[in-house]
Amino acid sequence: MQDETRERYEEFLTAIRETHAIQSAQGILSWDMHTKMPPGGAGLRGTQLAALTGIVHDRITDDRLHDQLRQLEEARDELDVDARVNVREMRRAVDRARKVPRELQQQISRTQSEAQQAWVAAKQKADFAQFAPVLEKMMELRRREADAIGYETIPYDALLDGYEPYMTSAEIERIFAGLRPRLVEIAERIRDAEVSPRREIVRRHFPRPQQEQFGLWVIRRLGFDLSRGRVDTAPHPFTSGGHGDTRLTLRYDESYLPGTLFGLIHEAGHGLYDQGLDPAHHGTPRGESVSLGIHESQSRMWENLVGRSLPFWKFAFPFLQAFFPEQTADVTVEEWYAAVNDVRPSLIRVEADEVTYNLHIILRFEIEKALLDRTIEVADLPGIWNEKMRAYLGITPESDAVGVLQDVHWSMGLVGYFPTYALGNLYAAQLFAAAQKGIPDFWARIEGGEFQPLLAWLQEKIHRPGMTDRATELVERVSGEAPNPDYLIDHLRGKFAPLYGWA
Amino acid sequence: MQDETRERYEEFLTAIRETHAIQSAQGILSWDMHTKMPPGGAGLRGTQLAALTGIVHDRITDDRLHDQLRQLEEARDELDVDARVNVREMRRAVDRARKVPRELQQQISRTQSEAQQAWVAAKQKADFAQFAPVLEKMMELRRREADAIGYETIPYDALLDGYEPYMTSAEIERIFAGLRPRLVEIAERIRDAEVSPRREIVRRHFPRPQQEQFGLWVIRRLGFDLSRGRVDTAPHPFTSGGHGDTRLTLRYDESYLPGTLFGLIHEAGHGLYDQGLDPAHHGTPRGESVSLGIHESQSRMWENLVGRSLPFWKFAFPFLQAFFPEQTADVTVEEWYAAVNDVRPSLIRVEADEVTYNLHIILRFEIEKALLDRTIEVADLPGIWNEKMRAYLGITPESDAVGVLQDVHWSMGLVGYFPTYALGNLYAAQLFAAAQKGIPDFWARIEGGEFQPLLAWLQEKIHRPGMTDRATELVERVSGEAPNPDYLIDHLRGKFAPLYGWA
Repeated sequence: MQDETRERYEEFLTAIRETHAIQSAQGILSWDMHTKMPPGGAGLRGTQLAALTGIVHDRITDDRLHDQLRQLEEARDELDVDARVNVREMRRAVDRARKVPRELQQQISRTQSEAQQAWVAAKQKADFAQFAPVLEKMMELRRREADAIGYETIPYDALLDGYEPYMTSAEIERIFAGLRPRLVEIAERIRDAEVSPRREIVRRHFPRPQQEQFGLWVIRRLGFDLSRGRVDTAPHPFTSGGHGDTRLTLRYDESYLPGTLFGLIHEAGHGLYDQGLDPAHHGTPRGESVSLGIHESQSRMWENLVGRSLPFWKFAFPFLQAFFPEQTADVTVEEWYAAVNDVRPSLIRVEADEVTYNLHIILRFEIEKALLDRTIEVADLPGIWNEKMRAYLGITPESDAVGVLQDVHWSMGLVGYFPTYALGNLYAAQLFAAAQKGIPDFWARIEGGEFQPLLAWLQEKIHRPGMTDRATELVERVSGEAPNPDYLIDHLRGKFAPLYGWA
Repeated sequence: MQDETRERYEEFLTAIRETHAIQSAQGILSWDMHTKMPPGGAGLRGTQLAALTGIVHDRITDDRLHDQLRQLEEARDELDVDARVNVREMRRAVDRARKVPRELQQQISRTQSEAQQAWVAAKQKADFAQFAPVLEKMMELRRREADAIGYETIPYDALLDGYEPYMTSAEIERIFAGLRPRLVEIAERIRDAEVSPRREIVRRHFPRPQQEQFGLWVIRRLGFDLSRGRVDTAPHPFTSGGHGDTRLTLRYDESYLPGTLFGLIHEAGHGLYDQGLDPAHHGTPRGESVSLGIHESQSRMWENLVGRSLPFWKFAFPFLQAFFPEQTADVTVEEWYAAVNDVRPSLIRVEADEVTYNLHIILRFEIEKALLDRTIEVADLPGIWNEKMRAYLGITPESDAVGVLQDVHWSMGLVGYFPTYALGNLYAAQLFAAAQKGIPDFWARIEGGEFQPLLAWLQEKIHRPGMTDRATELVERVSGEAPNPDYLIDHLRGKFAPLYGWA
């Protein structure tokens, strides 16, 4: 870089790093809201988050940043590869943000606080009507946002692109159409199987203090660094922060160990990605995660492909027995492995098995598209939700608390977000297949409790490059192939055929 | 107000409320830094706080706010009493802030994070040298700040005024000169007394879980609302937040119950003030506390004048016995009352008794004035500290961890802050005397566990008016007399003469 360009680039970096610091402050305030804040703090917290959202919006839409970017784009030939990534991704963010009025952004932020409080109260009473008005308000705000951003086919695309850049609803539909019949086929074979796991062994009483100790032992062992992170409880588990301060949350279920444990491993998977980002590029796109789909590929990989594997349990089961001697005295590791891989349609997405999980996503995807198009109305949601649950999963929620009110996403206005969960499963299977090829004695190491080779491989190939590649480019670079759902289907067949005794 | 003035005033309120929201967000980030943040988060947290400090500074020094204030000052006759308070206090804040360069403010904020980490490490190793360089840097920054603000006699005054508006070092010196001989006299009488309390009864083993339960019972009973606040642990206890989200912290000492309990009651006293501020004026000076001295008067009142009184323990002792049956089996309430009022020179200010406490403050006041003037240097602090401890309290710290490194204040750059602790004691005694006159059957109610009459009286006279009066005006309005140290001396004589058997 020439001196002038270098100076301009440094100035640009300082500005975007400060903006990032404010955004990460918002992250702490949100984390606090879900984990520590007393009920009386809700009003002020809404004002705080809205104020910071406004400031971030002002900074990102500032004409000076726009001009800096234009000048750096003109000097593109002088930029090194890292600088090009930062310019490319900030351009994307700036163009998107400049289309959304500040006032609208602030209204969304303010409504988030209001809607989350309403959702918690409504869920407690299983009373959707209590949540409906603020949800309607939230949907209207996000429709306005989609219109402001613009889209080629449907408003949903404008929002989807905010979570999974460069992805479209048409592409999601194509993937879902390819997955659905094969998932249904696997689910049917399992339903018809004569083998079934000892389900009750994971539903015994597992007291919280021991779960806490065992869970912390597991995630430390996987490589999560508690000097650069922490673990708390939250009604709906999430991971926030990054780099030196990555915060996981979990929800304890004393009568269903996998609910707690795999939830925690899932969040630890997100946390390992965040802890693996390159500190030298902290606060710039080059040091941030690629997309929600890639983020989810990391959480799902550790949760399902590692944590729900037989080699993992060959290693971990004796430790589980040490923490829970009475609950596991009459259980073999094979029985335990089968029980944590129990496939059955269930009400709650986050507790769904690997096979039926994506049906929950398809349901949300369809509802959200229609809600945004006003093909359906908020008031009709409980009915439509229950109908689709019957059609796709064959079950009906006893109450809206475990149905349409089951999770926090819509109260946060997260529409267009769910497909990233399905992409995460797809990417996870494909990247994990590449890891198995790239790491000698892969499964023997897992069985020996050596997770460092896998973590180091992920850090090198996926975490440290940050946003260098776009999501699909990254998958292709690492696996040698464009995203392909066959890897997920192959994984599911390879795992569940022997478990349920079909050929 | 005329329409134009009303509109201008509403616009002004919106702006200062948003600024307040950002400041309160900083409060949460600081609270988190001291209670929850993993070590790895220190770097980013410093950047976050510095960024927000810069934003707040920009907003307060904004020419538009300056102009709004000028216009409102010109329309003063139209303003109601609340509006006049807000204009008066914002003018004060704006004038002060406009004198301090943004860059200097940010440097102080950034240095605070750095210095606090260094202080924690240095305290752990009792190694002052590890802390000295960053303390020197902090002192230099605050000297520059004092110069920028300006002062009539010494730089110390410029900083003192930031914590206790309208107070001067000359006035403090006058008060301290009046207090010192009388405090020394009381301390000498106690030293010469033949009576001494059963000190060991408060130094038995009091396990943390029961301390936690008993402490929460006490502060709830005093009126602290846990739906609008919370309690956590921190190395140096503090209270932060306000209105709907007031956060207390404490430090457990299992071998010295008064250390934990009176620390908690002290913080709860701060918290009760914050919870008693008028929510209708939230985010404006009219809804904020008057000064640190008045704030401290509330914490010291609940801690010492209520919590260390015999009527309080006549009520609370049976409950203490219920939580700690073995530790209190051979103890009478009178013995307990005497033991928690043990007067002996000690190393740590926060654990000092009511009589010797102010000697700690005098020591700091003298050191800080000299440090700011460069009459003494940072490197000489441990020596000077220990010398003055010997001269005023007759004891020498075994290590700097319990000497010059004992508390967090200097790492936060809090110079000019300590006198507010002594003012708090003075104001507390004077206001408490007024409360006793104003509330029928005062002590009978305390003995009956009825704290609501006192809290309601404080809320009406002190909390809800917010910044309506300046500190000394408030004391005069409530007690009918200008601040007068006789009340504190009378209280101490009235309490300790019978306890230590002198006439």
